[in-house]
Amino acid sequence: MITIIAKGIVKEENIAKFKEYAQTLIEETKKEEGCISYKLYEDINNPKIITFVEEWKNQDAIDKHVNASHFVEIVPKLRDLQESETEVNLYKLV
Amino acid sequence: MITIIAKGIVKEENIAKFKEYAQTLIEETKKEEGCISYKLYEDINNPKIITFVEEWKNQDAIDKHVNASHFVEIVPKLRDLQESETEVNLYKLV
Repeated sequence: MITIIAKGIVKEENIAKFKEYAQTLIEETKKEEGCISYKLYEDINNPKIITFVEEWKNQDAIDKHVNASHFVEIVPKLRDLQESETEVNLYKLV
Repeated sequence: MITIIAKGIVKEENIAKFKEYAQTLIEETKKEEGCISYKLYEDINNPKIITFVEEWKNQDAIDKHVNASHFVEIVPKLRDLQESETEVNLYKLV
């Protein structure tokens, strides 16, 4: 299993739009065969910090995900709503 | 529920020691009443990046945790093994 944590800082005026796009991405992604979980979190002290925490069966599932039409279409839109690049880490359990 | 993501960058020579201390912290923390989950992850591309992902029932459980003897004793030791401050975010599900 690979866990991905993708942390973004969203421009204040774009938070609602970001969540709207993210919702569609979540719904489509959860249908993907190798997706174990795919959740979106908001920092309780700073609503601009919005982070995906994802669990994938393996790297192959991730490779399919990043080439899926919903990913290719929505993720660039999410990026445009952010202040900075997404901080992405791929993890394994210790 | 509150999810905490605590991301640390550990000095290369301290990774094994960090994991050893963390293991004790994990074992003790999992016994705490309000702890839903408490996991440690290592970045698959950079073993110096080690991150706790924690799920807590509520803020009260977190307050108890940060005052627990195992936290007070071990977390400063972990911090001494790191290159920089831990990046800590408290999250709620969107």
